[in-house]
Formats: sequence, structure tokens, C-alpha cells
Amino acid sequence: MLESYLDNVRENAPLVHNITNYVTANDVANAILAVGASPIMSDEPEEVADITRICDGLNINIGTLHKQSIRAMHLAGKRAMELGHALLLDPVGAGASKLRTETAAALMEELHFTAIRGNISEIKALCLGSTTTKGVDADAADAVTEANLADMIEFAKSCAQSCGSVIAITGAIDLVADAEVCYVIRNGRKEMSSITGTGCQLSGVMTAFLAANPGHALAAAAAVAAMGLAGEIAMEYMTDGDGNATYRNRIIDALYHITAEHLNRGERIEIR
Amino acid sequence: MLESYLDNVRENAPLVHNITNYVTANDVANAILAVGASPIMSDEPEEVADITRICDGLNINIGTLHKQSIRAMHLAGKRAMELGHALLLDPVGAGASKLRTETAAALMEELHFTAIRGNISEIKALCLGSTTTKGVDADAADAVTEANLADMIEFAKSCAQSCGSVIAITGAIDLVADAEVCYVIRNGRKEMSSITGTGCQLSGVMTAFLAANPGHALAAAAAVAAMGLAGEIAMEYMTDGDGNATYRNRIIDALYHITAEHLNRGERIEIR
Amino acid sequence: MLESYLDNVRENAPLVHNITNYVTANDVANAILAVGASPIMSDEPEEVADITRICDGLNINIGTLHKQSIRAMHLAGKRAMELGHALLLDPVGAGASKLRTETAAALMEELHFTAIRGNISEIKALCLGSTTTKGVDADAADAVTEANLADMIEFAKSCAQSCGSVIAITGAIDLVADAEVCYVIRNGRKEMSSITGTGCQLSGVMTAFLAANPGHALAAAAAVAAMGLAGEIAMEYMTDGDGNATYRNRIIDALYHITAEHLNRGERIEIR
Repeated sequence: MLESYLDNVRENAPLVHNITNYVTANDVANAILAVGASPIMSDEPEEVADITRICDGLNINIGTLHKQSIRAMHLAGKRAMELGHALLLDPVGAGASKLRTETAAALMEELHFTAIRGNISEIKALCLGSTTTKGVDADAADAVTEANLADMIEFAKSCAQSCGSVIAITGAIDLVADAEVCYVIRNGRKEMSSITGTGCQLSGVMTAFLAANPGHALAAAAAVAAMGLAGEIAMEYMTDGDGNATYRNRIIDALYHITAEHLNRGERIEIR
Repeated sequence: MLESYLDNVRENAPLVHNITNYVTANDVANAILAVGASPIMSDEPEEVADITRICDGLNINIGTLHKQSIRAMHLAGKRAMELGHALLLDPVGAGASKLRTETAAALMEELHFTAIRGNISEIKALCLGSTTTKGVDADAADAVTEANLADMIEFAKSCAQSCGSVIAITGAIDLVADAEVCYVIRNGRKEMSSITGTGCQLSGVMTAFLAANPGHALAAAAAVAAMGLAGEIAMEYMTDGDGNATYRNRIIDALYHITAEHLNRGERIEIR
Repeated sequence: MLESYLDNVRENAPLVHNITNYVTANDVANAILAVGASPIMSDEPEEVADITRICDGLNINIGTLHKQSIRAMHLAGKRAMELGHALLLDPVGAGASKLRTETAAALMEELHFTAIRGNISEIKALCLGSTTTKGVDADAADAVTEANLADMIEFAKSCAQSCGSVIAITGAIDLVADAEVCYVIRNGRKEMSSITGTGCQLSGVMTAFLAANPGHALAAAAAVAAMGLAGEIAMEYMTDGDGNATYRNRIIDALYHITAEHLNRGERIEIR
């Protein structure tokens, strides 16, 4: 089902403009390269419209906001919309500070995002106005579980409907929803949360998938499955003494080697 | 002796706000995660007080200062003090530029740091006004050695007394002092200095230890011993062809696996 | 032929000031440490002249420009010139935005660079005013090949003559030219382009080579050969499942272990 989405990334090699945080920028760049796309980072207001012009998608991540980079997000976002590019929002830490919540809200007001990817607390902050985000991590009490799954699927769909965007809520169980359909994805490993930036990497990779497969919401789910599967494959290569730093490298390595066949065989996506 | 300090980090999982440099931010985040705490980075003046509010400790690192981030350091530091959070200063490159030396001095004037961690040249720059710092490294002539140890212990204690902070001077021999006691720590490997940011990582980890063990100056020494021990354990996993990049990962991996028992058994701390 | 250049880096341990992008800053720092030099990063206009003063070389990389860092580049560059330091420009993405192209041009107008290192599209943007740069990568149509080699050598030499700088054009075949001589270097592996920042790392390392070997243009070619050779050695250590993240580490590891004898034996430099 998913094989064409990855193939299209590797064949089209989309160029992804990232306005992102300095904590995980290097890993985001290497993850984008690993799936066969190309990254460029730029957050200077004076050049972002120029940079976005030559790209195929724009990944806006609010992880280490500055007043100037917020201006850049608006300028680049408007240009990306005019050009019909894939446009993704990663609302890192929405709910953790007024500036982050308001910046995400203002971006959602002005821009039409192809997809919004965050943890459950961040998405609740955007769609319900809650403020339970624990720094850049989800609050455990918010988690999507098998017990609350039906409700969370409805939440994701209604959120997608009101935003007009694909909503990707990632955690132990991942949900990718538009207004009608929700993909429930059970790939991934809990150890991925002991690494900084697997979410940021996924946002970069997802932007590449959406850029190479315009108009296909399922491409966002394919990106989530690919990242989760990479976490599973990476764990098989872990040996004695390896910890979160080596796991970080092994996940990107797994993305580098993942094939459409792996993805097709390994994805655990349920349609709801 | 030290086991409870690490256990408390893993059990309480303190959230550490880092205003830090972009060179080593990723490694700092992964090191904080490795010991069981959580990192968040933010240096925008408009949000730092908000971010610090939801955290348990604040790590201020002046490695790549900007005028705006200096404002953020003051704003976040004041809020952290009001809230009684662990508050750490890493005066990277103090003595190497007027701006760094003056910024560190102004922060020490306005804020009361729980601990200050630097190399010997940086600490001398702050306490004696010397300017022998070689970029971000200590001048070899300043080094703490077995020959000058008694004098350096006195220096560390007097420095701690005048600042009212725990002073951690790290290098081949590490000193952690308050006004009365100095812990002399002989863990670690000289190869750690061939990696960028082991000091920055230690500052993040130390903030987590102090946040999870409020009021315990020995927790700072425990963090130093844990980092040094991680450097020793990591070296055991190095194989043919491995160099400083792999060693960087292996040290964080070792922090990830280190147990209170390892720490208790491996620490080489002398009380003076 | 080249052994003394590397030996001089390891013996003199030059301190390299980097005004560089936040995407690859960590790898640049570790690569500089790997060859035996020391890095410091600073891009705050108020301190850069101070920082450059204590250094031996300045590496200016325009990968994630900000208006403030552009000011810092001019201020630091002027001081470095006054002090006779090695001064290198890495015009990342020149041709991809007006700001990048104009910033590189303004720096070249005001400063005299010891060397300029970029991919072929970036160098063409600077010397011919072309705008074919694909983000931060060269356009495939621009590539230096065996078929167009003679022409490209002439281009590199004429470019060097008009700039008065050593011109290093890196890609599948690398060219390092001054007005009279062009070194054609065939070290390296194509997989190096699947990692973010090998070019940035090379610029940092090249600045260290030029700082430790003032006045020797061949030192720039030695740095190119060392980086390429590190890519070859690193590939020998790659095992099942290793991808671009592990390759990144292995290249820095290889730089860490490379000896003057390796370099002398492994370099594939042709003089034209």
C-alpha cells in the first residue's frame, strides 16, 4: 500500500526548507538525507521567501523560537502557500509557554498547513487550549492508549476537520487523521523517547513525503510508519553498551536503508 | 555514598531549562535524557520566564552568546531564583572575550547560582580576573595537578565562599567545593578533551542532579563522578578505528546505562 | 609531499574561530579537534573581534545567515586580516538566495580570503554570477567530470586569479587552484554527499591547515585529500546496517586517527 510513497521520495528527491530549532537541526538534516530528500535550513526573514521558492516543501518547527524566526515562519509560509508547496507545522512545546501557543495559533490562522505533527499534549494545546505540555514532552495523563483509542480517533478527526489539515499525533500509538479517516499506527519503540528530536526528524521526513506525494494524506501516515519501523530495525542492531546516542544514529541509519518493501511488509497501520 | 543522588534523578525526572550554545545543544539534551531527566532549550527573552516556571532547574551556558540571549539569561535566572530552582552557570570562554567575562560577572552579580562549573582558566577569570583562557579550553599552565593540589583546593573553597555557590572546576583532576569541603574527583579520561562539549554536557547533567537533590552540594560531585565514570566505561567499548566522534556517542551511552551501584563502586572521590 | 602540513596542525594545534551555521557546528568542532586543532564558535558582533584576536584562523560559513552574524563576519574578518590570520570563506548556498550571493560578494569585496571553498555551483555563483545552486547542493549539470576537467581547471585558476584567493571546488573530483597551479584531487567517496556538513567540516579543517602552514597553498589541497581519505578509510569500517549517521561519525573518527604517513600514501593529487 505504502511503497509508492517512499519510492516517490527517493525518485523525486524533494528539497525541504526547514525553519527549525538548533537543538536537533543536524539530525533533521541527516534524516531527510537518509530517506533520499535534501534539506536546507534558513530562518533569516530577509531570505526565507527566496529559499522556499527553490524548495518543494516547508517544515516549520517552533522548538527554539526567536522573534526574528517567527517573522521568517510567516514570510516563508505565505510564499510556500502561493507556490502550492507541502507545508508542515511542528508545534514543539505548544502549551508550555504563551509565546509558543500563540505563535502556533497565529501561524494556523494565517497559513493553511498540509499537516500538523505533534505529541498529544501539543495538539490538545492547539485544538482545545489545554496547557498540560511537560516542556517538549507529552503529559503522561494525555497519552493515547488502547483504552481511550476510539475517543482519541474522534478527537483527531474533529481536529483535522476544524484545521483543514492532516493531524499527526505521535506517541506510543500514532494517529494520522483527516476529517474522514484515521490511520492508527503501531510501529515504533518506546526507547525512541529517550532521544532528543525523533519527533523533529519525523516532521522533516513527513514534509519530504508530502512534497513528493502531493495531495496524498496517506503519505503522512507512511512517513510515521517509516520512522517507527526505523526505530524497530535500529533496535535489532543495538549491542551491549549501546544507549540513546547510538540508538539515535542507528535510527537514521535504518531510514537510510529502508526500502519500499520493508515498509510495505513492516507497517502496522489500521484504518479507522 | 552517592547512589541516592542518581536514583533521585531517575525517579524524579527533573525538567531542565537550558539557555545554551548551539554547538553542543544536541549532546546536552541527549546527556540529560541519558541520566533520566528531561531537557528543554529556550533563549528567547519573551518566553524564558514562562519556560523556567514549568522546569526544576536552569542551566545557563555562555558558549555562543548573543545580546538577546544575555537578556534571556537574566530574565530566566531571576524567575528561577524566585521559584527556588537549581541554578547553574557554565562560563564557557570567560577570560577569552570582554563580553564573556563581563556577562558572567553580571550574572553572578544579579543571580545567586547553586553551582558554577567551568575549567580552571574560566574559574580564575571569574574569581581572579585573569585572562589566560585559550578559547574555550583551559590554559595548560593553569592546570590542577597533584603538585599544586593543596593550593587549588584552597582556591576552590575561597572562590565558593566569596560566590556563595558550589564551585566545580573540571579538568584532569576535578574539584567540587563549597566554603568548607572540597571533593577531589579522579574519574574521567584525558581523551574526553578531544570531544567538543563534554563540559557542556556535564553542566546539563549537574543541573539535573542539583534539581533532583535540592540542597545537597555533594550531588554536584556525584554528577562529576558520573560523567567521568561514563568516560571510563565508554573507553572500554572503543574498538579499532573508533575516534572522538564515536567516543562522544559512547559516553552518552554510558550515562544511559550507569546505575547507582556503578557510581558507588566506580567513583574516586576524596574529601578534603 | 603532504606530511608536514598535517604534522604542523597536530604540533601547533591552531585555534580556529568559526562563524558558522547551527546545523553542522558540532561536527565542525569535532572535525577540527580530530585533526588536532581547537575550535571556538562565536557570531555575536560585540565579541567576534576579541575572539578572533586570540585565534590563528577564521572560518566564515554562510550556511544559516542572520543579519547580526553578517555584521560579525565583517568585523571578525577585518580583524583577522589585520592580524595576518588564515581567513576562509565557505559560501554555503551562494546562488540559492539573493542574501547569500550578495553577502558572499560583499565579504569578498571587503576582505582578502586566503581560501574560498565551495561546491561548483556556489563557486560559479560567486565568479560567474550563475544561480543554479540546488539549495546547499551543486546542480548535477555543473559537476566537474573527467570530460570537462581541462576547462574546469582553467575556470578554477582564473577564479583564483581574479579573487587573489586559493579556490577549492569540492565534489566528485576536487580542484584546489591558485592562479598558476591546480591540484586535482581524486580522494573521497560519493556517499559523503549523503551526510549533512562534510563540506562545512572540510572548511573548518582547511582553516586549521592554513593557520598551521601560513603561505602554503598546497596546505589547502592537503586538507581536501585528508578529508577525502577519511571518507575512504571510514567506509572500510562500515558494517551491516550502518548508514549515513554512522558514516558521519566514522569520517570524523578517521580524521582523528589519520597520520601524515596515511596521507602521504593515500593522497591522489595530480598537479596541473
